[in-house]
Amino acid sequence: MANSNDQYGVVYPKGFKASGVHAKIKKKKKDIGIIYSEAPATASGAFTKNLVKAAPVILSEENINNNIRAIVINSGNANACTGKQGYKNAVLMQETTAEELGIAKEEVLVASTGVIGVQLPIEKILEGIREAADELGDDKDEGIAVAEAIMTTDTFRKQFTTEFEYEGKEIRLGGICKGSGMIHPNMATMLGFVTTDAAIEKNLLDELVKEAVNKSFNSITVDGDTSTNDMVAVLANGASGVNKIADKDSDLYAMFAENLIGIMKKMAKSIVLDGEGATKFIEVKIKGAKNEEDAIKAGKSVATSSLVKTAAFGEDANWGRILAAVGYSGIEFNPYETNIYIGSKARELLVCEMGQGLEFDEDIAKKILSEKEIYYLVEMDEGKGDAVIYTCDLTYDYVKINGSYRS
Amino acid sequence: MANSNDQYGVVYPKGFKASGVHAKIKKKKKDIGIIYSEAPATASGAFTKNLVKAAPVILSEENINNNIRAIVINSGNANACTGKQGYKNAVLMQETTAEELGIAKEEVLVASTGVIGVQLPIEKILEGIREAADELGDDKDEGIAVAEAIMTTDTFRKQFTTEFEYEGKEIRLGGICKGSGMIHPNMATMLGFVTTDAAIEKNLLDELVKEAVNKSFNSITVDGDTSTNDMVAVLANGASGVNKIADKDSDLYAMFAENLIGIMKKMAKSIVLDGEGATKFIEVKIKGAKNEEDAIKAGKSVATSSLVKTAAFGEDANWGRILAAVGYSGIEFNPYETNIYIGSKARELLVCEMGQGLEFDEDIAKKILSEKEIYYLVEMDEGKGDAVIYTCDLTYDYVKINGSYRS
Repeated sequence: MANSNDQYGVVYPKGFKASGVHAKIKKKKKDIGIIYSEAPATASGAFTKNLVKAAPVILSEENINNNIRAIVINSGNANACTGKQGYKNAVLMQETTAEELGIAKEEVLVASTGVIGVQLPIEKILEGIREAADELGDDKDEGIAVAEAIMTTDTFRKQFTTEFEYEGKEIRLGGICKGSGMIHPNMATMLGFVTTDAAIEKNLLDELVKEAVNKSFNSITVDGDTSTNDMVAVLANGASGVNKIADKDSDLYAMFAENLIGIMKKMAKSIVLDGEGATKFIEVKIKGAKNEEDAIKAGKSVATSSLVKTAAFGEDANWGRILAAVGYSGIEFNPYETNIYIGSKARELLVCEMGQGLEFDEDIAKKILSEKEIYYLVEMDEGKGDAVIYTCDLTYDYVKINGSYRS
Repeated sequence: MANSNDQYGVVYPKGFKASGVHAKIKKKKKDIGIIYSEAPATASGAFTKNLVKAAPVILSEENINNNIRAIVINSGNANACTGKQGYKNAVLMQETTAEELGIAKEEVLVASTGVIGVQLPIEKILEGIREAADELGDDKDEGIAVAEAIMTTDTFRKQFTTEFEYEGKEIRLGGICKGSGMIHPNMATMLGFVTTDAAIEKNLLDELVKEAVNKSFNSITVDGDTSTNDMVAVLANGASGVNKIADKDSDLYAMFAENLIGIMKKMAKSIVLDGEGATKFIEVKIKGAKNEEDAIKAGKSVATSSLVKTAAFGEDANWGRILAAVGYSGIEFNPYETNIYIGSKARELLVCEMGQGLEFDEDIAKKILSEKEIYYLVEMDEGKGDAVIYTCDLTYDYVKINGSYRS
């Protein structure tokens, strides 16, 4: 459910400001954004596992364990495959941001997204950073501006907020993200930034961010099958005034964890919903695999199958493709003890029982598959391994968008 | 190059007959085929590695080490995910073929391709087998008929022949295949059948077929990422009268191997060329990986990337997607010692040098990418591992075909 404060995004928590400007990297749209914390924030992040890492990713990985006060992001150019010059340019972005904000350069993270293999128009970008630094604010307008500035092929802005009370005080979280790739198999960059006015020990935040990323962004993408520029960063600046979260067994930790995981799940789902050319949101549920690892493997195999995804687009209950995708996923299972359901909110239909096709009602199947949000449930009898993977359908428009993205 | 005898296909070698009939599994087109050898033939094959195996695959794997005299194939229904009834039906196909031809049922291989999860219309099929057994012949017409009978979404018939002389006598090979999937990631069934009038020791044939499959069908598909029904079978009946091939170091073996690998490569390429909705044939060449295994891994990662394939369709020299696909392939390599070329027969263009984008001539790139057959060459500096993987582009028509295949 959308939160009425969602449009504030990353400026929703106390002590954060943001801005977004048009530095003419892109023709018309905003392309430079800054997220700023008044106090040094405990930071944690996750970075692409692609061996080909963009310069800003390398630089931000070097700085993520510092206390962070600003994130500067440009869209329109990924600064990837740009060699030493690219790294120098990422450092220039970092230094200029630090200078303008009067903070140390080690307190600045840098992120980029856009075309690969072309040097940044660095003068325009530094000029844009100066302008963005001047325009920082904590109003809805600035929350929207920074969310716009990080978009590439996204068809809508992605902003989220959530909050909870602890001993009479409020802790807030805000997040923005971008990404609209087919996610699988994919290199369309995902960026995600979460701000919170909670205070939390660095080691606890690291552990929690790892868990949250696995349950959100990593449930829509395959490890290793990632862009050169993927980055998720969480900043916790403590401005709420609530005690520092230091005990994993505390209620406060539990509440914070629930909210952080929740907002990151919403962010990840919004990326699937904005899948390039997608018309449907698909949940692939695996139940009863030997273990969780197998369940995830099977789920990702189904969720990445071009044939499963085109069948969803065609609203065709072609469950054979689902079973076959589990079959080649590499997990051990008995197909003859496997059931497959197709479902939506309104109804669910068993289409394959014990590995064999049923004569199901094609009209009901059509009705289910005509909905915007559907799920496929694969039920095995191997153990207690469950997983849910999110994906979208594969459509004409996907081909159109990706056939001409660069130009 | 097409051989003028290609239309004879599997009846080109001596001592083979074939036929193809319409048994009304499909609305209008031929759907039952038989390949028959007058003498018991040494046989070898390769079968899907998918854990979900169709009934005919299970049955044929049980019989492939026998001498084989017939292969019966139906299209229109894969007899996959059909349980015990499906297996019984495959046995019925085998038994009926044997009965009609007066041979033992252990001498019959069975293959099926088509929709998954629906029981075979077995009465129609057995009737079709009887009819096909009556119509066996070794003329061009029958060669064409069996090649037609195994087609599903194929847009053209796939028949090949080759021959060579040894000590004044001729040895012939003939092959038919079907398959038009995007191959990657895919479950569109590939079937391939090769006949030859050579005589060869079973163990040598097994070894050679393994090598030939790796260099052909396995260079267009990922191990494990296979259909429930994939099957390749080779029958050598010795009718040429040439001495039995029994020595791996002999000239005769070398000549036979060259011809067998050659015809299977042609067969595999024809499947890529008929990729569902494909407009381009793409060779992905990897040079200088640490070893061959890494080269294959990198090549398959590039060849399966939806983003690389849509860029090819869009004739966009988006080499960043190629480098990124190598980056997430899981191999170790230094992106900053990597070059990427795009090429066609007429010209080649370096677009990325030492991991960095070059300012190349976009007009030349456009010209190259407008050709029907193109290649991407990724040159690393890690070792001597080379590989070539074949693929095709990802187009609107792929989505169209696969969005509505079942119905």
